[in-house]
Amino acid sequence: MVATVVRDGQRDEVAVEEPLEIRVDGRPLTITMRTPGHDEELAAGLLFSEGILEARTDLVALERPADTRIEPELRQNVLVAALAPEALERAQNLQRATVMGSACGVYGRTVIDRTLPEGRPDIVSGLRLPAEFFHALPARLRERQSVFARTGGLHAAGLFDARGRLLALREDIGRHNAVDKLVGAQWLAQKLPLSEAVLLVSGRAGFEIAQKAFLAGIPIMASVSAPSSLAVELAEAAGVTLVGFLRERRFNVYAHPRRIAAL
Amino acid sequence: MVATVVRDGQRDEVAVEEPLEIRVDGRPLTITMRTPGHDEELAAGLLFSEGILEARTDLVALERPADTRIEPELRQNVLVAALAPEALERAQNLQRATVMGSACGVYGRTVIDRTLPEGRPDIVSGLRLPAEFFHALPARLRERQSVFARTGGLHAAGLFDARGRLLALREDIGRHNAVDKLVGAQWLAQKLPLSEAVLLVSGRAGFEIAQKAFLAGIPIMASVSAPSSLAVELAEAAGVTLVGFLRERRFNVYAHPRRIAAL
Repeated sequence: MVATVVRDGQRDEVAVEEPLEIRVDGRPLTITMRTPGHDEELAAGLLFSEGILEARTDLVALERPADTRIEPELRQNVLVAALAPEALERAQNLQRATVMGSACGVYGRTVIDRTLPEGRPDIVSGLRLPAEFFHALPARLRERQSVFARTGGLHAAGLFDARGRLLALREDIGRHNAVDKLVGAQWLAQKLPLSEAVLLVSGRAGFEIAQKAFLAGIPIMASVSAPSSLAVELAEAAGVTLVGFLRERRFNVYAHPRRIAAL
Repeated sequence: MVATVVRDGQRDEVAVEEPLEIRVDGRPLTITMRTPGHDEELAAGLLFSEGILEARTDLVALERPADTRIEPELRQNVLVAALAPEALERAQNLQRATVMGSACGVYGRTVIDRTLPEGRPDIVSGLRLPAEFFHALPARLRERQSVFARTGGLHAAGLFDARGRLLALREDIGRHNAVDKLVGAQWLAQKLPLSEAVLLVSGRAGFEIAQKAFLAGIPIMASVSAPSSLAVELAEAAGVTLVGFLRERRFNVYAHPRRIAAL
């Protein structure tokens, strides 16, 4: 999604960025700066990766606010989530925890420990792919990206099946949003865990991207650029195969190379 | 800052990513994923752009937690801010507002309106520079970046004076953190508003980057890549000159070209 700005009397295109507010129980739970489009998927993916949504029945409805006094333009930046009782309680706990500091601190526990609490199982997947499989992915992602994303205005995230087919592609000004949209769409369609899928992101792979891949059950995650130290640590601990600097002729494997056949 | 990971028996370097928790009044106010280093500057810049810190005297102390029961490795991920009474009240209001949903919603007000409340003055600066001034900046930023940042592992933000000299450079895995570190250092040194300075960021320019530049009083902000629609809107409304796709021979101006002499 692009907007046209006029510059020196000429038209120019820029990526659209607008806030999306997700409301739960009559108040904002979170706000994210995103490129409009696939908002329901983004909200579902975000609530899923925050641990609020688990079963599909946790989400009763996801709608624009009914209050017509709000300007239409602003209504497009709000989604109201109606949650089943248990999910609502998790949302309220998260809101309380954020205030009281009981859950969101790094005090005493590492972020890895919080993502992988004692007893949380690793990724379960029999997926094993040849090295050649990976070389073709970036071109397939680019082919399907909008011209605008290819020119650097947006991040892209793609989900591939074991035959290398692009199952879904999402673009956003925020890399984590592109992944939330991808995962949210699959969660809405009740297709999690994605234990036969490969995730490819257009830029770097930081901790939050690795965390979202793990939570969705994705066994192999690749990026065309560098991973961060914490993404490597999490992938190692969680059983996710992490590929970085994926190019036509080469790539690096930072964690769990066992799923790549020639390695 | 880089970490060494072992991959296929070979050593490889990745950018370090760790959470930084900023504690106020005995509880976490915010957590950001950052590259360690210049943490005090990052915390000061972040608290400044959240509107909690105004006068330099608002910040009484910024220290690692005294509690020695916390593992040293985790202590490096926490900073405790001691605030003067008025700043403390603003922090508490922000914490309350986040819970009650009274301040952080997009309901009824655009993000531009919230950044520029009625009566907030535009950028005041007499800075005016020739177009050639800009072409040299990216190379000067790259020269001073670490090898690691140049190869794509980290974002960089640089602050230049009106003679094109690089006053300060900060690198981080998060683009907004690199800018917070830059602005925080200047705030700590009581050099705000930066009304004679030019900010250059290595990647894209989104809303939050433009907002941080505006709050620091920076009249000209440039990026080597694309701005977002909301960054353009804010720059337009706030009187910030916004330069995008800054290369050796060309650049685009998206807002307030009056500060660029040949335009």
